Parts: sequence; C-alpha cells; structure tokens
Amino acid sequence: MKQTVEILEVSPRDGLQNEKTILTTEDKIELVERAVRSGARRIEVTSFVNPARVPQMADADDVMSALPRQPGLRYAGLVMNRRGLERALAGRVDEIDVVVVATDTFCRRNQGMSTVEACDMAAALVADARSAGVFTTITVGASFGCPFEGEVSIERLREVVQRVVDAGPDELALADTIGVAVPTDVKQRLEIAREIAGPDIPLRLHLHDTRHTGVANAVAALEVGVTTLDASIGGAGGCPFAPKATGNVATEDLVYLFDRMGVRTGLDLESVTDTVAWLEERLAKTLPGALARAGGFPAS
Amino acid sequence: MKQTVEILEVSPRDGLQNEKTILTTEDKIELVERAVRSGARRIEVTSFVNPARVPQMADADDVMSALPRQPGLRYAGLVMNRRGLERALAGRVDEIDVVVVATDTFCRRNQGMSTVEACDMAAALVADARSAGVFTTITVGASFGCPFEGEVSIERLREVVQRVVDAGPDELALADTIGVAVPTDVKQRLEIAREIAGPDIPLRLHLHDTRHTGVANAVAALEVGVTTLDASIGGAGGCPFAPKATGNVATEDLVYLFDRMGVRTGLDLESVTDTVAWLEERLAKTLPGALARAGGFPAS
Repeated sequence: MKQTVEILEVSPRDGLQNEKTILTTEDKIELVERAVRSGARRIEVTSFVNPARVPQMADADDVMSALPRQPGLRYAGLVMNRRGLERALAGRVDEIDVVVVATDTFCRRNQGMSTVEACDMAAALVADARSAGVFTTITVGASFGCPFEGEVSIERLREVVQRVVDAGPDELALADTIGVAVPTDVKQRLEIAREIAGPDIPLRLHLHDTRHTGVANAVAALEVGVTTLDASIGGAGGCPFAPKATGNVATEDLVYLFDRMGVRTGLDLESVTDTVAWLEERLAKTLPGALARAGGFPAS
Repeated sequence: MKQTVEILEVSPRDGLQNEKTILTTEDKIELVERAVRSGARRIEVTSFVNPARVPQMADADDVMSALPRQPGLRYAGLVMNRRGLERALAGRVDEIDVVVVATDTFCRRNQGMSTVEACDMAAALVADARSAGVFTTITVGASFGCPFEGEVSIERLREVVQRVVDAGPDELALADTIGVAVPTDVKQRLEIAREIAGPDIPLRLHLHDTRHTGVANAVAALEVGVTTLDASIGGAGGCPFAPKATGNVATEDLVYLFDRMGVRTGLDLESVTDTVAWLEERLAKTLPGALARAGGFPAS
C-alpha cells in the first residue's frame, strides 16, 4: 500500500497573517475554496485573535461563517484565549489549534504570558473545546530555536511538551516557527515528543523554509513516522512577532517531493500552482515556493 | 569522530556559465580566492569550452594561469574534447571534469554528440589526463531526468554508468542537472552507481535546488555514504543548454545544514555569505540561496 501524508493547509492563517496587503473576505474564502478543490481536507482557515494585533485576521468570524462545508473536510481556527475560543465555537470550527511558545521571551511577545501560563491557558481551552465536541491541537512554537533566546534546549522542550501533554490535546504539534531546524533536530525532537506523548496522541510538524531545510525536514519527519505536516500554498507566511520569520514550507514543494517519492498527499500539483499564481496577484508579490516557477517533472 | 563532507565549489564554473553579465577576469579570480579564504579546498574554476558557445568562459586560460596555488588546494577545469584538455593541461589544472549526458538528445545539444560517443571521448580524455598526472572525474549529466526526453530510466542510467566506469575515471559524479531529483531517487541511483563502480571509485553528487529538493538530496547522499557534493556560492548556476535549469544548491545552505547537523565541511558560513553579497553586486541580481538573507542560527 502506498504511504500517505496529510498536508494541513495553513495559507489562510499563517500564510496571510504577516502580509501587509489585507485580502478581502471574499478572497480569503476563495483561497480556502481553492485549497479544497486542490484536495486539501484539513485547513487552518483563520485565527481568532485581537484584530488590533493581527489586522489581517479581523474578519475571522465572517470568513468562518461563510465557508462551504463538506463531509470529511475539517476547518481549524487558531485560538489563544477564552474570547478566541468563544468566537471559534460560534463559527462552528471543526478543530482548534492552541499555541504555546517554548521560550518565555517569545511567548510573552506572542501572547502576553509566560510559557507555563500559556500551558495552563491551553489546558483550559482544550477542556472547554472538548466539551463542545471540537478536536484540539496544541502547537509548541519555537520548538527548534527562538529568535530572542536562541537555542531551545532539549530539557526545556521536554518540560514544555510534558505540560502540553498534561493539558490533554487530541494532537500535539511541534513548530519550527523561525525555520532553523535541520533533519537531525527534527528526528530527535519528534522522537522526544513521541516518547512523552505516548502512542495515542498523534504528532504533527509545522515547518518553515527560511533556511531551505523545510523539504529535508519533511522527509525526516516521515522517516520517524510523523505524517501530518503543515504547509502553505506558495510558501506564504511568517510570524508577526518573530523577526525575519519567513515563508512556511510551500505546499506545492511538498506535493512535488511526495509525488516523486511515491507518497500520496491527495493534492493535485497543477491545481495548487494555479492558486500560487492567483495568490501572488492578490498579494502583489512573488512567493518563495519553487514549483510554480520550475514546473513539475516530467512536464505535463 | 565528527563526520566530514567535502563541498566542491562550482560557482566559478557552473555558477557563472549561464549568467548574462560577464564577470571580469579579475572578478573571477577574486571569486576563487574568496572561496579559498572561506575554506574551499576543491574548486571547479572554469570550463575549457568554445567561447562562441559559452561566452562567460572565454577567459578560461587567463583565469587558470592567474590563480594562486597552495598545497592541498585543487583546481578543476571542465573539458569536453581534446582541445579543451590541451588548454586545461597547459593551464596546469589539478583535476579535469569530463561530462557525459545520460540522454542522447541533451548530450547532442550540450556537446554535439551522442551519449555513447561522449563516453568514448571521455575514455580518451581520461587516458590522456592520467598520462599527464591529472586527477579525472566523469560526470553523468541529467542522471535523474532530462529536460528533453523526460524520465531517465534506471536501465539507461546503468548502461551509461557502466560505460563511464569502463572509461576509468578516478571519480564518478551523478548530476541532477535540472533539479528534479528527490531523496529516494538519490539513494537509489547512487547505490546503483556504487554497485557498478565498486568500492574503489569515489562517488560525487552534483545538485540543483530548482524544486527545493537540493538540501534534502544532500542529506540523502550522506545517508548512503556519498560525502563529496558540488555546491555554488549563492546558489548561482544553471546549464545554458537546458531550459529552466536554475541554481545549483547553495554552498551556504549546505554549510548551515551540516553545521547544525554536526557534520564538518571546513567552510565558514559567515565568510561564504559575505561572498554572496559580493557576487550579487557583481551580477546585479539576487541569488537564490537562503542563508545570506536569513542569517545563521543562533545569530553570531
């Protein structure tokens, strides 16, 4: 049987949140619809955060309520506090993603609290979302390095992952928020997460291609059995609160990689690269993914 | 003991040959000197080809004769025929690199002969270079896919590699000339080359990052024991006779990768990225490597 990878499309959320050009609500909805037509089945569609801090996400409620629903299609929303969770539940999200940053400095800048406080908040949000029947992920931001504190030690990561596991999410994600990880890091830290989380909590990996290691890191994840990967159409993305945090690993770069490796993603390369062209027009900029320019192989 | 990778710097040859901006002879010499100062110990400094076909290489003889010599530092020149070999020997190259393209269509466009004819030519050149005491590499171009014929079958690659091994080079390189390979291809095809070449002919891999698989492919090479990799400062490069063949994998991207993986390259990241800035100024363009923009980690 062919191996399968699940690519979680994050362009509507992480892809857009750092962009100066504000997309219209209609364009955001079209982006999600395009991802669905390309084969995406899990999409992080928005974040329910303070519009004063992330202006691009001001219309989160409108986007969420307007999206077409399909069986088997899951929409996720990022939340950081009770107000965000209420909005996400009112918008009928299928999943919430709660972020906890591994270092205190970055966590305070990102969400105004220490890592321990963020873990406590995550535990409360996860409990409430579960009562509402919503799937929950906790993402550990800066799992591989911090733009403010530098190296994140294995001991620190263990400590944070243990707190996150204690919070009881349905899924646990490690995020390379600033794109510093290399394959040896990915294997080591995912194995630590697996050891702490046990076999019953699935793992997910969020990659950035800031230093061109994103694709190599995706391969490394697969090699240790982690088969749910975040990616963003065009490689759009970056964190507004992390300096120089550039593009997520591009969805189309992973689709090319996995197609050629004989790993099923369920996504259509040509359809995704069509959307890259569309999104570049909307954002009036060139996105960093390679495949929209290089084309697939063999040429179709 | 720390694992070691040998990065063969190809920016003065493959990096420049496709550039419209012709660098001065002085700048080419400075590029080589900069690579040496960054720690490079094998550098492909030029190609001794027809200046009418590759104008950037018209001053190959002048570049070669002006380069500073050091013990342990090896300069390679690319040659395709007897005239080229004579020029390379007159310039006192330490190594020659002879190219054979795996498909007939591309081989004819690249060097005006079929693959079998190119293998015969390579055998003659290798024999003559050996008599002159010069180290020889044969590179199999388009080992992972051809811009004209599409897929290059395993059977075809076996046949070509066997002919190349029969030609008796000191080293055998596989080249992903148009950047289509993925890690599974790299492992499979390097293992086939190893099987045909036997344990006594070292293997080398030439990568392009056209589809962002270059870094992942470098990791794959290491995993099957191939530790000599071509790379180009800034990721400059491309083949003038292959449509859309863009940048070689960037030296600095590999240095970052291997530094973080604990693999020794002998190259200094900051020194290499300084040269990226210098080269971008000379070429009046942005080069595709990531590290010059993203910076190392942790920040120095």
